[in-house]
Amino acid sequence: ETLSSGDERTARPRNGKAREKTLTMETLNPQVKAVEYAVRGPIVIKAGEIERILQEGGKKPFTEVIKANIGDAHAMGQQPITFLRQVVALCTFPELLDSPSFPEDAKRRAQRILQGCGGRSLGSYSASQGVDCIRQDIAAYIEQRDQGVPSNWENIFLTTGASDGIVSILRLLVSGEGRARTGVMIPIPQYPLYSAAIAELGAVQVNYYLDEDNCWALDVHELHRAYQAAKQHCQPRVLCIINPGNPTGQVQSKKCIEDVLHFAYEENLFVMADEVYQENVYAPDCEFHSFKKVLYEMGPEYFNSVELASFHSTSKGYTGECGFRGGFMEIVNLDPEVKAQLVKLLSVRLCPPVAGQAAMDVIVNPPQPDEPSFAQFHKEKASVLGALADKAKLTEQILSAVPGIKCNPVQGAMYAFPQIFIPPRAVEEAKALGMQPDMLYCLRLLEETGICVVPGSGFGQREGTYHFRYVYLNFLDGSRMILGSSSHSNAKV
Amino acid sequence: ETLSSGDERTARPRNGKAREKTLTMETLNPQVKAVEYAVRGPIVIKAGEIERILQEGGKKPFTEVIKANIGDAHAMGQQPITFLRQVVALCTFPELLDSPSFPEDAKRRAQRILQGCGGRSLGSYSASQGVDCIRQDIAAYIEQRDQGVPSNWENIFLTTGASDGIVSILRLLVSGEGRARTGVMIPIPQYPLYSAAIAELGAVQVNYYLDEDNCWALDVHELHRAYQAAKQHCQPRVLCIINPGNPTGQVQSKKCIEDVLHFAYEENLFVMADEVYQENVYAPDCEFHSFKKVLYEMGPEYFNSVELASFHSTSKGYTGECGFRGGFMEIVNLDPEVKAQLVKLLSVRLCPPVAGQAAMDVIVNPPQPDEPSFAQFHKEKASVLGALADKAKLTEQILSAVPGIKCNPVQGAMYAFPQIFIPPRAVEEAKALGMQPDMLYCLRLLEETGICVVPGSGFGQREGTYHFRYVYLNFLDGSRMILGSSSHSNAKV
Ligand SMILES: Cc1ncc(COP(=O)(O)O)c(C=O)c1O
Ligand SMILES: Cc1ncc(COP(=O)(O)O)c(C=O)c1O
Repeated sequence: ETLSSGDERTARPRNGKAREKTLTMETLNPQVKAVEYAVRGPIVIKAGEIERILQEGGKKPFTEVIKANIGDAHAMGQQPITFLRQVVALCTFPELLDSPSFPEDAKRRAQRILQGCGGRSLGSYSASQGVDCIRQDIAAYIEQRDQGVPSNWENIFLTTGASDGIVSILRLLVSGEGRARTGVMIPIPQYPLYSAAIAELGAVQVNYYLDEDNCWALDVHELHRAYQAAKQHCQPRVLCIINPGNPTGQVQSKKCIEDVLHFAYEENLFVMADEVYQENVYAPDCEFHSFKKVLYEMGPEYFNSVELASFHSTSKGYTGECGFRGGFMEIVNLDPEVKAQLVKLLSVRLCPPVAGQAAMDVIVNPPQPDEPSFAQFHKEKASVLGALADKAKLTEQILSAVPGIKCNPVQGAMYAFPQIFIPPRAVEEAKALGMQPDMLYCLRLLEETGICVVPGSGFGQREGTYHFRYVYLNFLDGSRMILGSSSHSNAKV
Repeated sequence: ETLSSGDERTARPRNGKAREKTLTMETLNPQVKAVEYAVRGPIVIKAGEIERILQEGGKKPFTEVIKANIGDAHAMGQQPITFLRQVVALCTFPELLDSPSFPEDAKRRAQRILQGCGGRSLGSYSASQGVDCIRQDIAAYIEQRDQGVPSNWENIFLTTGASDGIVSILRLLVSGEGRARTGVMIPIPQYPLYSAAIAELGAVQVNYYLDEDNCWALDVHELHRAYQAAKQHCQPRVLCIINPGNPTGQVQSKKCIEDVLHFAYEENLFVMADEVYQENVYAPDCEFHSFKKVLYEMGPEYFNSVELASFHSTSKGYTGECGFRGGFMEIVNLDPEVKAQLVKLLSVRLCPPVAGQAAMDVIVNPPQPDEPSFAQFHKEKASVLGALADKAKLTEQILSAVPGIKCNPVQGAMYAFPQIFIPPRAVEEAKALGMQPDMLYCLRLLEETGICVVPGSGFGQREGTYHFRYVYLNFLDGSRMILGSSSHSNAKV
């Protein structure tokens, strides 16, 4: 076959057969096929359909869908923090620096950020690690948060949301074949970014179960069990923790974090601490302890050796700026050569979005008491966090009152992960439909009450138990919930 | 070993040895180690050092470094397009919608974008494919660009820069082991994102050489050669084209694109068309032809079968908004099940930055002649593109005048990739230093003239030939260039 003559350039199905596709389910990257991701799965598609029916005047036993499936604060009506948006708008359109309607402290921050940008423009690629002065602000913020524990800005990397940081670190860590393959220990239930990234990278997912009976605490004995079991078939090298927890909403105690770090020290594990909910702690008897600070307090032998990456984001906290895709990671004790490799890897994708970096800067460098925006900033922040704390409490109360549902204390993050008791007959019915029982439960809950939640099977749960994740950014209508649930725990399913 | 008792929690070097690191160059993911990325490599680090020396009053034969190493327009002083920034600022801080200093057409666009966002906020996660109305605007833009060739907005995916789209598609396409491993055909010289992604994914890089003697044209005979040779050891399934070219700056003819598509049709290849420079065509005898349009004109047998992904970006063109990380891809003839898999894969990382999506929207939906911002927008756009056209011409003239340098016509994009003749003695010296000869050349050029360019070896070149990539966003100082070069082509190196 040559292609030089004109005639041959006429298209035709060869051998009478239609041309086959190159990329089919058969030829698709099997590691991509193996990825599971439930947060935006069938329930959400169904919710969209129901919304369309309602909009077109169709009838349902409710008038609107309550989206309690995703931690997307602004989509649920939370208002942006004015100061943050002022700074980002000033950076975007610097002509506004002359406008009297923007406060001086916002202007100062915007000017400083722009000075860190090539050509003083948000439109320049930044260094792959992010804008230097923002990295410095982050390090200062961490030192303050951790009551003086030193933070080196050269260990700070801006990221495209926390997601990007988490995946980037996992990409470094995966290696080996067969029994030498990297095992990544993740909590069950987990935020499914972890299982998805592990599947795509072809690493081995090593599950450790959070202790539901003990308010989703992380028990170090369970870590040992999981580690020892995994060692039979892979090389566990990474330990991921989500604190405060998603989907479980717990806040780990300092003692628990110490135990975890000790374990990681002993077993030579790289620790990934997902701390995107560090500002989201509501229970009065709980406090956020960063892994970095606890490691420091364990003494230099620990602090100078355990490899730790911790992740933060603009998406959560009191800002809820998900769409800006801002975030950072701090990495301590990383081998310097490996660090150079990380920089190289990040360079390939050029840089994180600079507007997101600017948003992150506001979070770590908020208005100070002597600045003009302080009062309003503080009021807005307190209002968001106060409302979330109220909703956390209300969620716990309402869910605990629903027959057939058992709910742990809701301590932090923006989630409750109640256990649901599904009668055997309903379990059978789900199986007959080729569906997880909790998926069936959530579909029925959606159809009957308009409440959209994600089934526990999307996050992982102990065999034979069923849950759903409820995001309490929205108002929780107790009566709807009780109505919906009672119709399931009896024989109607 | 149990960890329950207090004593055992005291840290100690076990067996007297210091605790080893988990992540070292030995345990690092070997596919990450294999990634090469020169655009931000040693030359750029050296340039930074020299800049610091100059700032601190140190002496060099020049007073400033000319960064001609990266296509980062704003960093080189290009001004943002006012209208684009107005729209993004309005979206960011909607209070400005009441300000009389913003034009109505910018407000209309911002309002429309915000209506497409959850809670009318740029801070909500968008759908993983991007905001619907922006996808629709993109499809309309493509139809207009391609003179009526239909574009379905459901085939449009917003991305985090074009980089993200390119890597996402490659992630789908990689599969198989040994001789069945996916081969990805890329031009040499190439934009090193491709080789980096291929290395990390463990795919097989299949080089086809652009024809330097023919103005970097893509010769289909060379595609055949590369394909046949590759079939001996892998399964070539993907064909990547960059048009207009980076680093080579050529614009492919319609005939050439037809030949390429015919070849892809015959050999069942998935085509990835990197068209981020589609607005950057300067040579009067050249025109941009999208792969999609050419495919359409080849008739339904082609148009309904060849799987094609094409990529665009906010980073290039006349906007140069790199930092916003905006971009999109259009994918035609993708198997519907595979498309669902792509959506799933993108969902894991949630969504592209929404501010970048808004910036993309302005590019595809610019002010119309009857709108208030039209005149200024048009003037700014023409001024940027006019200046680039002038610089392209000047670059070609100056480089052609330098002894020891041979430069092809500079037709588009923002690059020239001249060949340099390095005397054998200098080649020997470089080898003795364990360096590529063109790396040594570029280092010397930087040290002697302050001009920072990337060696051709970072992009790939025919064995025994040497080049550098010159980015002509900056002003090119002809005398400096001649000075620098002449000192290399004689015996001083
Ligand atoms: C535990 C956890 N980690 C990471 C992320 C990723 O967030 P982002 O990429 O928006 O920063 C989320 C988002 O919900 C999360 O819940
Ligand atoms: C050919 C080509 N493709 C893709 C990109 C990626 O650009 P971005 O990710 O900023 O859209 C670039 C950037 O220089 C490029 O030159």
